[in-house]
Order: sequence, then structure tokens, then C-alpha cells
Amino acid sequence: MDFAVSEKMQVVLELINEFVDKELIPLEPQYLSRPWEELEPVLEDKRRMVKQMELWAPLHPKEWGGMGLDLVEYGLVCEALARTFTGVYVFGCQAPDAGNIEILMKYGTPEQKEKFMRPLVEGKIRSCFSMTEVDQPGSNPVMLDTTAVLQDGQWVINGHKWYTSSADGAEFAIVMAVTDPEAPPHLRASMIIAPTKTPGFNRVRNISVMGHSGSGWPSHAEILYQNCRVPGENLLGPRGHGFIIAQERLGPGRIHHCMRWIGICNRCLELMCQRALTRPVSPNQKLADMQIIQTWIAECAAEIRAAKLLILNCAWTIQKYGVKEARQDISLIKFYAAGVMQKVVDRALQVHGGLGMTDDTPIASFYRHERASRIYDGVDEVHKISVAKRIIKEAAAKVAS
Amino acid sequence: MDFAVSEKMQVVLELINEFVDKELIPLEPQYLSRPWEELEPVLEDKRRMVKQMELWAPLHPKEWGGMGLDLVEYGLVCEALARTFTGVYVFGCQAPDAGNIEILMKYGTPEQKEKFMRPLVEGKIRSCFSMTEVDQPGSNPVMLDTTAVLQDGQWVINGHKWYTSSADGAEFAIVMAVTDPEAPPHLRASMIIAPTKTPGFNRVRNISVMGHSGSGWPSHAEILYQNCRVPGENLLGPRGHGFIIAQERLGPGRIHHCMRWIGICNRCLELMCQRALTRPVSPNQKLADMQIIQTWIAECAAEIRAAKLLILNCAWTIQKYGVKEARQDISLIKFYAAGVMQKVVDRALQVHGGLGMTDDTPIASFYRHERASRIYDGVDEVHKISVAKRIIKEAAAKVAS
Amino acid sequence: MDFAVSEKMQVVLELINEFVDKELIPLEPQYLSRPWEELEPVLEDKRRMVKQMELWAPLHPKEWGGMGLDLVEYGLVCEALARTFTGVYVFGCQAPDAGNIEILMKYGTPEQKEKFMRPLVEGKIRSCFSMTEVDQPGSNPVMLDTTAVLQDGQWVINGHKWYTSSADGAEFAIVMAVTDPEAPPHLRASMIIAPTKTPGFNRVRNISVMGHSGSGWPSHAEILYQNCRVPGENLLGPRGHGFIIAQERLGPGRIHHCMRWIGICNRCLELMCQRALTRPVSPNQKLADMQIIQTWIAECAAEIRAAKLLILNCAWTIQKYGVKEARQDISLIKFYAAGVMQKVVDRALQVHGGLGMTDDTPIASFYRHERASRIYDGVDEVHKISVAKRIIKEAAAKVAS
Amino acid sequence: MDFAVSEKMQVVLELINEFVDKELIPLEPQYLSRPWEELEPVLEDKRRMVKQMELWAPLHPKEWGGMGLDLVEYGLVCEALARTFTGVYVFGCQAPDAGNIEILMKYGTPEQKEKFMRPLVEGKIRSCFSMTEVDQPGSNPVMLDTTAVLQDGQWVINGHKWYTSSADGAEFAIVMAVTDPEAPPHLRASMIIAPTKTPGFNRVRNISVMGHSGSGWPSHAEILYQNCRVPGENLLGPRGHGFIIAQERLGPGRIHHCMRWIGICNRCLELMCQRALTRPVSPNQKLADMQIIQTWIAECAAEIRAAKLLILNCAWTIQKYGVKEARQDISLIKFYAAGVMQKVVDRALQVHGGLGMTDDTPIASFYRHERASRIYDGVDEVHKISVAKRIIKEAAAKVAS
Repeated sequence: MDFAVSEKMQVVLELINEFVDKELIPLEPQYLSRPWEELEPVLEDKRRMVKQMELWAPLHPKEWGGMGLDLVEYGLVCEALARTFTGVYVFGCQAPDAGNIEILMKYGTPEQKEKFMRPLVEGKIRSCFSMTEVDQPGSNPVMLDTTAVLQDGQWVINGHKWYTSSADGAEFAIVMAVTDPEAPPHLRASMIIAPTKTPGFNRVRNISVMGHSGSGWPSHAEILYQNCRVPGENLLGPRGHGFIIAQERLGPGRIHHCMRWIGICNRCLELMCQRALTRPVSPNQKLADMQIIQTWIAECAAEIRAAKLLILNCAWTIQKYGVKEARQDISLIKFYAAGVMQKVVDRALQVHGGLGMTDDTPIASFYRHERASRIYDGVDEVHKISVAKRIIKEAAAKVAS
Repeated sequence: MDFAVSEKMQVVLELINEFVDKELIPLEPQYLSRPWEELEPVLEDKRRMVKQMELWAPLHPKEWGGMGLDLVEYGLVCEALARTFTGVYVFGCQAPDAGNIEILMKYGTPEQKEKFMRPLVEGKIRSCFSMTEVDQPGSNPVMLDTTAVLQDGQWVINGHKWYTSSADGAEFAIVMAVTDPEAPPHLRASMIIAPTKTPGFNRVRNISVMGHSGSGWPSHAEILYQNCRVPGENLLGPRGHGFIIAQERLGPGRIHHCMRWIGICNRCLELMCQRALTRPVSPNQKLADMQIIQTWIAECAAEIRAAKLLILNCAWTIQKYGVKEARQDISLIKFYAAGVMQKVVDRALQVHGGLGMTDDTPIASFYRHERASRIYDGVDEVHKISVAKRIIKEAAAKVAS
Repeated sequence: MDFAVSEKMQVVLELINEFVDKELIPLEPQYLSRPWEELEPVLEDKRRMVKQMELWAPLHPKEWGGMGLDLVEYGLVCEALARTFTGVYVFGCQAPDAGNIEILMKYGTPEQKEKFMRPLVEGKIRSCFSMTEVDQPGSNPVMLDTTAVLQDGQWVINGHKWYTSSADGAEFAIVMAVTDPEAPPHLRASMIIAPTKTPGFNRVRNISVMGHSGSGWPSHAEILYQNCRVPGENLLGPRGHGFIIAQERLGPGRIHHCMRWIGICNRCLELMCQRALTRPVSPNQKLADMQIIQTWIAECAAEIRAAKLLILNCAWTIQKYGVKEARQDISLIKFYAAGVMQKVVDRALQVHGGLGMTDDTPIASFYRHERASRIYDGVDEVHKISVAKRIIKEAAAKVAS
Repeated sequence: MDFAVSEKMQVVLELINEFVDKELIPLEPQYLSRPWEELEPVLEDKRRMVKQMELWAPLHPKEWGGMGLDLVEYGLVCEALARTFTGVYVFGCQAPDAGNIEILMKYGTPEQKEKFMRPLVEGKIRSCFSMTEVDQPGSNPVMLDTTAVLQDGQWVINGHKWYTSSADGAEFAIVMAVTDPEAPPHLRASMIIAPTKTPGFNRVRNISVMGHSGSGWPSHAEILYQNCRVPGENLLGPRGHGFIIAQERLGPGRIHHCMRWIGICNRCLELMCQRALTRPVSPNQKLADMQIIQTWIAECAAEIRAAKLLILNCAWTIQKYGVKEARQDISLIKFYAAGVMQKVVDRALQVHGGLGMTDDTPIASFYRHERASRIYDGVDEVHKISVAKRIIKEAAAKVAS
């Protein structure tokens, strides 16, 4: 066993941390108070700087303009970037684009890659991923109402999706739709690329989430597909393999999210310490002198570290043995890390008192928006049950042997 | 011991519940998406209905136009009203006005009562309470920077306050300021009535809290007092008695807040059950069939009930023996009830999945705004320490005897 | 609502508290280190004192030699007695005898009352309740393996029970056995009185529980019924009504246990405070000065109080409206109070450090033996599910209406 | 980063697991119900087998007859051994001997090594470590009452210790005593080897811990040193360096304990799964089908894994950078792992219901005895505070720079 971070990565992380501190954290007030449209050109500038530093698109292959990091390294980068809202965006590894790129990389035809993936990797366009439905639980593949029927060489898509994040301003969506209703449950759906300008692709609204509809990248759209016709060649990957591809996409995506949460935890712990060091509770005492605060800081530190190791271990397993072998871990880190983050953010807020409720720090935004971490990509409870079933099955096999 | 609710109150509560269901809950989408100014006239209508039903101002004496309920009864009313955002406002018992009325009732001169209190009780104006300071912990009376100096028969107020809730649109503020810097710590500050139109009363901004600056009643202002001069007769209560009055105000105010939280809990539990009953998790199962959800519901029910009894017991003690005797309980219910509410709201949100994050239900708003319950009126931790010190002191006295 | 304790009860409780402090707490080292047989005569003396003080058998009717308290009053007595191990025993209201007396009182024939109940109420004999089976979940009435067949006017009992508490030294057991296997599930079992000297009543062992087999009253036996024949007239209550009677017995029994747990909590909180006041952590500081300890004390105090009110409210409901109306509460207080006790005991132990692990205080015994509170009388989880199902059903009914 | 376990270690662990399953787990009933003296000869046999398999004394150098594993490897061995009570004993790495050997290895004179260490490594004798005092907090070095005065070339030791674990049957104790009361606080105490047969070494009692006084290895003695005279050459390490040595001993000792706790967790999880697979809750359902149980299993699995990685990471840091660099982690894993174990054991017990309370499984023993993990080697709270102070200090340094 070797827990050392390579020297190369140490340098990369130092560069990133510095960039985040100097260039991105100062943008937080703007991010929190102004519409996305105003911030976008500023971030464009920052992206240029990142590209010049050759830190662009850390996970994507060098031949496509990325850094070509492995998954453990990428995880460490996500952690560093997530200390502020715009980190992953400015470094070209924001969800949902990063995940979409991966699918395209693995399953896209050369034409799809050229048309959709290249500008995405280069940060020229944005995309979205359209899976979750209003009335159906995302965790159950059998229960998908959106359909795509092949008519005259075109996929005709009908359905009602929401939480199609970042659809506002995206060039295309990857839509999950039932194409083969008679197939076995897990082989019913396919992924189809739907340009957002296609007639019948109706963005009903950006959903008001935690008080804000948002716009642009940080927004979550409700989409009504009404006879939305896209070319037959927009099928992404094999027909009926929608869920299989979605599962595969999950591995690196999970690492991305979970390490992002660790980054948020780190930031909150920093803020907690700074606040504790400066806030008086009496003329001679600061918050940092209070045992309750100290206890929180220690517990947060322990849990953040434990969660980080759990995630990196999972990244390493994916890398070494593949997504399938790592499945248990991929579920496990989801609920574990989300739980740790919620606790850390909550305590950071509490340490800040009234200030913590305001948008004068990033904590209140973490508090309300990252609450979603326990919900998206499968609610924690579903992951727990699936982890347990696998453990119980193994135990049964052991007893039987 | 007798846990029965009187028949009179059963009728009152039934009327209120019905009113809340029919008249106020339907306003929630509007409350969550439109500025206060648009909603205000609608609520004015509702207030008229409440007055006609003779349910106006439940805590205030009949001679001033209220219902004259006792504190336990008032608590039950708060619980019923808090199922929706606008309940306490429409029934004329919203913070901070209700608390201000109580101070004025007890300490106001006849002139102050006529000028400030009467229109307040009648719902013709709004007021605010200006105590919390940006750089000082609210829990420590020694650490107050705002001053009021008596010059030529006028109080000249200087200082920097925030979380002066509902200042936007208020007619006057009750300001806590140091008037006697040389007095013993607890006798340094006084309460002074400052009309908001007074020159030098500068509302800097409505603070952006959890993503929203708000306006009108639901807003929290930052106020800069710059040589703000108000008449000498605007001193409220004895000079130097600011903290003593603030302590007394706390009792009924605490009951108000805590029972309001119980009402929020009740609403969340209702929503949780409704969601569980309707949301499929598989073609043959609803969320309500899942043991995890069931466990949550049962735990929430137990904790809500326990918290409610604890608060009502405290209200009864205040009523029977006075605020001083109930002090321990007044601290205790604060952190206990806030903790229960946070857990209940969190679970209600989780049961709603993605929907819980949106503003299509009131839960997301409860989640982000009621987080403040663990902070305002003294952070939970301060209350815990003060409760413990009293318990330990009693234990020491017992040992000594 | 009225939370006042009557003057009569205040006097009773004061007397009891004094007795517990002076006569019973000093016996704890003996209770913890010596076999029951040695302690029994000492406790016999104490029982005599209690009878002289007319505090014997608080729940049982005056005409049978008891105090005839109502259920709320009895709860308060249990709380006071439970501060030490032998309290309920010395006052003649120990489980399982108290519960058995209640069944006999309600369902016993005059002959059964004279023969079995009278000496039990008078404390001349002990009894046990034989329901739980080794291989079946106690919570599911359908799954009971023990049978009783009526042959020649005698019940022939066969089966394997355990956790027949206090069987060692008991005169008789009330056995739950299937008498009507073809009846609807809830009407299959009956209660039968089986004298322990009957051939075929085999006490296999006192189970080693948490390191100790125990003996006499504080022990839990495994019983093998092998053609154990008892007279037909030993049927207790109507044939097939075993579960119905068991349910009814639960109400007051639950109050007994839950208030006993509150008493244990009170004792632990006392010990916590005393330890905190005397234990140095540095030359100038005691544990009581540490915020962490203070926080624990405050949280314990709040939760103990909340739990106590919840239980008393339930007792009041049983008394006023009957067991059936109080069913929800009877389930709810079980898991809520058990949870609070476990937390309080755990913290008391932690405050005592190494001493807490020893038998030099009662805490270690509370810690290991009261862990059972979350298990007996239905594991917490079963109660939670049943509470939730009832809540959900009510919610469904509401929606439907 | 590389999370792989070497092939060599995989083989070792497999051998150990098999040995534990076949040879040691079957001894559990005997361990739980019979005195140590009866079990000792059986374990002697097992030790012989272990020596033949060349798995004896995993942490100690090969030249002294051990396996010479590094700390990460040793941690994995401890984990495997701790699945049952006697594992570490049978493999010659039981506390407190393992720690004592380490001190002797590093600080012992050649004579001390030959006389005390050799027979200890070989398992011919046992030893104990006598530091904790009845009236003083172990965590504060200034507060040590035991003294050792050099008179006529002999150390005369006086003091009152307890929790001198395994003193019963030990050949010698390493005693911590103040030798230089005028020195700076951390340089006042020294370690001295005191043979237990020395006059003045009085074992007052084996303390009754969680209901049992125990005997032999699994016991905790109270020792009264009354003019206990030992040769001057029994000073272990430099005079006044007692605390410095104790700190150093902590590193590997912490790994030992924490990985042992992981082993206990693993065993509990195994038992939980087996129970869940076999225990019916209704005619058609097993515990394993209940979501609540599933949730527990998943959460336990996640936390055990996270804790394990945290500990191994710490072991790796100690190994690579030394105890001093790893200090923060050494504190952190203590409270984190102890917390995880307590939760896992508690849930395992709950899944077993009434059976969990009995000594028919090892869980009840884990439950009561491993509760000490949050207390010994510094209570969790002290570690949390020390971790926090270091984090806050670093944060302050960062701000300052």
C-alpha cells in the first residue's frame, strides 16, 4: 500500500489551489448575486488562462486537448476545484458535460465525436443529460415514460423530463428514452442525442430550486419532448443499451461528484477555522477557544479524511479493475460522502451564526444546493439497499460454501 | 395532571386549521415566487376575514382588539398557523411585531401605547426590533457597540445593526443601545423607539439570506444608525433596563417561535405522508411501503409530540410561575425544538426527492430559512451551556446540603 | 391543560425519594457483587418498612393491600423507584409480577385470584411470564410454537421458551401457548397458569445475559415445557384470547417500564453532575467546566424531560380513554424513551471515564442490562413500523375525505 | 497511490483467517463462561501451532523470533486476529505486552532485554503497564501522584494505580512514576520496571469491570505501591522521559487497537448478515428482507471501510514519516474508529434481538467491554480537542502568512 501523491500531482494541485484562491474565489459574490449571463464572459477569460497553463479538461485524453489524468488524479483535481462554485466549470470538467464527453468518447461514432464531442471538450458549447422524469423514480429503469420511436429514419421523442441540468443554453441533450418497450426491463431504453433547437424540444421552465430558477449552466430545466424528431444517426451507443451506458458513466461521474463534495468540505472547514479564529464570544475569548467548536472541527476533519480515502480507494479500484468490480464502492461512497458533506456544511454554517445564513459567504449556497447530493444519482436510501443486498448475497454464498 | 385541550380551544383550532387550509395554503406558490408587495394586498383581505371571525391577535388583550388567550392557548394557535408561511401574519401575531407589542404593553407610556402600539395591534403598521450587531455576539450583553447619547432632550443613536428583521416597510424600530456605559454590564443598554423615517436611520440593504434579499415583512435589514436623533420620550421602559426587558420578552416570544416550529413539523409530516402514499418506487409499491420511510415517519411523530409537550409545559410554567421560574425551560425548548424541526424538515425533503429541492412545495423554503432557528435568539450552543450551568449549580447545592 | 403534580403525590414522592436514598442506594454494591439469595432477606426487611409506611404496591387496589394510584401517579412512583436497582422490588411493583397481577385482577376467576394473585400482591411469592420463544420473533403472534392441548381436563403444554424472566424461584408462570391452531391468527393462543413445580416444567438454565446468569428475581430463564400438565381451570381469561390480553397488559406495563427508564436517566444525570463537579481535568479545572460535558448535560436534561412528558401524556390517555385509544402512544413512548435512556446512560458512563466501566457505580450495569430496553416488548423497529402504518393510514383517510 | 495488498500478505491473512475460524472461534463459549486459568493451557497449544506456522509475534523483529512485519501489514494482521477474543493473545501480539516489548526494544539495556523482553517476546511470561491513577486524569501528565525516589541505588515506588491491565499473573510491570518533581511538567516522570513479586507491589483487587473481575490476562488490576523497592538499573529509558516514551509507544499501539476494532466490526457485520439470513420475521420473510436491517448493514459497511482506510493511512504515515508527523492522525483514528465500532456493535446486537443480549454470541461481550475504547488511551473528547487545536493553529499560521 502506498498513500503517497506523486510529485507531478503535487505540483498540479498547488497550481490549481493558487488559481482558485486568486482568480475564482473573488468571483463568488458575483456568482451569488448576478445572473449567469453576466458572469460567463469573465469565466471565459479564466478558461483561457487555464488552457494556457495546460490544466484544461483534466480527465480527457491529451489528443483531445485534455490533461489525460487517471481517475485518482482526476479525483484530487476535482477536490481542489470544488473549493469554489466555478472551479470545475473554468477547468472544463463541469457536470453534466464531463460525463457526456465520456459517453461520447466511448460510444460515439466518429461523426458524433466530431460534431458534438469536440466543441464540448473545447468548451465552446454546453450540453445536458435528460433522464429524470417528473412522475417516475429515477432509480427504477422499468419506470420510464419517455419514448422514442423510429419513424422514417428519425427518432420521434415524446416525454416529460425534469432536472435536465444546464439545459438552458445547451447545444444538445443526451436523452434517455424507451425505444424497445418489449425488451427485458434493462434493455428497453436508449440514449439519443437531441439538439436543443430541434422543434418539439420544449424547455418549459428552469425549475425554481431552493428559491432560484437560475439560468445558464447553474439551472435545472423541465423539458417537454413533443414529437421531437432527431436523425436516426443520433442514437448514442447500441440500441437498448441506455441503462448499461448510464451505469458505466456512473463510475467516473461518481468520483467527480464525491471528490467535489470533499472540496466543499475542505472549504467549509477552512472557513470554520477562520471564523473561529476571529469571532469574539467574550472580550477575552474567540470561538476557537470553545470546546464545542473544537469538537466539531475535529470530527469534521476525521470524517472528511475518511471519506476522501474511501473515494480515492474507489477511484483506484475502478481504474485497476473496472466499473463492475467497483460497483459496491461506487454506491457506498455516494451516501457516505454526501452524509459527511451535509454534516460539515451544517456545522460551518452554525459556526458562522447569522453570517452563515447570508450570502456573504459561500456556505449558505452549499447548504441549500448541495442538499441535492443525497438525492440525485439515486437517493441515498436506494444505494444503501443495493449495497446491503450485495453484502447479504455474499454472506449467503459464504454460508452455502 | 390534565393534558386535555378545552372545548373552546378545540373550536378555535378547528376554525383556524380550516382557514389555513382553504385561504392561506393556496397562496404559497405566490409567496414563494412573487415579491411581498404583490402579496400584501391579498393578505390584507385575509386579515379582514380573520378579524370578522374574531380570531385576530390571539395573544393580545381583548380591550386592545385581541383574543386575550393565555400562553398555552396562544401556543396551540401558533402551531396551527405555522403550517403555512403567512399564517401568523394574517392572524396578527407575526414576529417581531407580537413581541414589540408585548414590550409596549408592559413598559410603554400611555402616549407610546397610543402612538406606536395601537396601530401595531390593529395591523395598520409594522415594526422591527434592532438588537443584533454585525461584529458582536448577540448572546453577550457586554459586547454591544451601538450607543445612544442624550443630547438636548434627544437620543442620538450611532451604531451598526443587522438582522433587523422586517425593517423594510416598518414604521419604527425598537433599538437596543448602550446608554450607560459605566453601569454594571447588564444595566448599560436601553430600548429606544426609533421611527424609521428619522434622518440617520439608514437601511443599508436587505441582507441576502439563503439566496434572497426579500422585501417587506419577510426580509432582514442591515441598518446604519448615524446620528439618528429621536425624542427623549422615546425611551421604552426604564433607562438601562434594555437587557432585563429583552429577557422578559423572551418567554412568550420563545413559545411563539417554538410552537411555530411544531406547526412547520406538522405540515412536513403531512406532506411526507401524502408523498409517501402517492409516489411509486416500483410498479407495485409506493414510498409508504418502504420501511425506511416508515421509520422516519414514526421517529418524526414521536419527536414532534415530545417537543410539543415540552413547549406547552414551558408555556404553562411561564403562565403559572412567571418567566423567571421558567428560565431553564425557556432555554431548553429552544434547542430541543429547533433540533427536532431540522430533522423533520430534512426528512420531509428527502422523502420528496428531487421535488423536495424545488419550490413546488414549501419544504425547500422551510429547509433553508428555518435553518436560522438554531441561530437566532441565541445559538443553541449558548443555551445548552446556560442550561447546564444551572443544572450543575443545583447539583452542587444539593451536594452541599 | 394542567401540568401540576398533586400535593398528595408530592408528599408520596418525597417519601419515596428519601427512602431510596437512605435505604436502597446503599445496597447497590451488594446487589452488584453478591448472589440474589444473600440480598433477598435484606430486601424483605425493607419491604416491611415500606408496608408500614403504606407505600406498598402503588398500582394495586387498596382492597388488595395496595395504594390504588392512578396510572399517571403510578408512573411518577416508578420514576422515583427506578433510581436504584431494587426500588420497584422493594415497593412491590416489580416486573413481571405487577403485570401478572393486572391480568389476574381483570381476568382471573375468584379461585385464581385467591390462590395465585393474593400471595403475589402481598409479596409472598414471585411469578413469571412465559411468552418469548427461542426461534420465533416475539412480535408476530402467528409464529408461536408452544402448544397446549386439553386432555382429560388438563392442559398439556409443550414448547421451548426463553427470556422467562424471574422464573428462578417463581411459584408459577403465565404461559402463552397455542390452544386453537385453526382459529384466526390472533385468536390461536391462550394464557395458562403453570405452577413451576409441575412435572414437565423444566428450567433448563438461567441464560447468561451480558456476562451473568444471575439468580432469583434478576434472571432470565430458558424453559422447556415437556408434557407439562396443569389443571384445565388454570386457563386465564377466555380461550384464544392470549394476544388480546397481552395487548391490554401492555398499556400499564409500558408506563411502568418507560417511567422506570426515566428514573434511570435521572439517576445517571445526578451521577454525571456529581462526577463533573468533583473530577479534576487540570489543576484548576473540573469536568463541570468543560463545554462538552455541559452540552451533554443540557441535551440529556431536555430529552429526559421531553420523554417524561410524552410518557405521562400516554398514561393520562390510557386512563382517560383506554388502552385502545392510546395504542399509538404506547408504541411511540417505547422506542422514544428507550433511545433517550441509552444516550443518557452512555454519556453518564463517558463522563465517569474508567470508573464508568467498573461496578463501583450503577452505571455500567445500566449500560449493559438496560440495553435490552430496545429489544423486549417488541424491538423498537417493529414499534416504529406499526406507528408509521397507523399514521399513514390516517393520512390516507384524510386525503380520501 | 496504490491500495493493493501484497501477495505475501494475502497469503498470511488467509492463513490467519482460517486459523481463527477453525481453532479460535470455537473457544468463544469457553472464553465467555470459564475462568482464564482453564483456558490458558488450551491457548498454549494453539500458540505452539502458530509458532510452527511461523506466524508468531507479527510485529516483532525476526531476530527475536517474530515475523518482522511493517506497520501496515501488522495492522492487517490485527484486523484478522480480532475477529475473536483470543486472536491477538494466541499470535503473541496482545496488549499490553506488545507495547511493552516495543519500549524495551527501543529503550531497554541489553540486560533488560535479555531478562525481561526475551521471555515476553517468546510468550513465556506476561507483563503489565501501570500508568493510570484512580484520582487523576490519565490525559494530563502534570497530574500524576505516584512517585519513585532513588534511595541507596534503589527506586522506592509509592502510589495508587488502577486499570493496570493483565497484572494478575504478570511477571513485571512497567510503572510510570514521578522521579523529578521539580522538572518541567513533561519531564517529571520516568518508566521503571517493577517485578510483581517485589514486596510493596500490592495487587489490591481485579476491578469488577462490566460485571466481572476477570482473572489472568483479561483482567484489570488496582495496584497499591507501598515502598516498593526495585533496583536502580530497572529505570527504562532516560530518567524523566516517561511521557516522551509513552507518546512514542502510542503510535503502533494505536494502530494495534484501532485495527483490532475493525476486526471486531468485521465479525459483527458477519454475524449480522448470518442472523439476518436465518431469522424469520414472518412466515415468508427473513430479517434480511427488511429495509431497516439493510440500511444498517450498508451504513456499517461504509463506515468500517472508511475507518479501516483512515487507520491504514495513519500506519503508513508513521512508517514513512515517523510518529511525530503522524500525531494528528494518531489522535484522529482513535475517536473515529471507536465511534464506528460502537455503532456497528450496537446494531449487530439489535439485529440479534434477545439473543444479542446473551453470551451465546460474542456480541454482548464486545458491547460491554469494548465500550472502554472511547475511554482508554485518552478519552475521545481529549483527542478531539487536541486534533482541533492543531488544525486551528495551522489555520492561524496560514492566515498569518
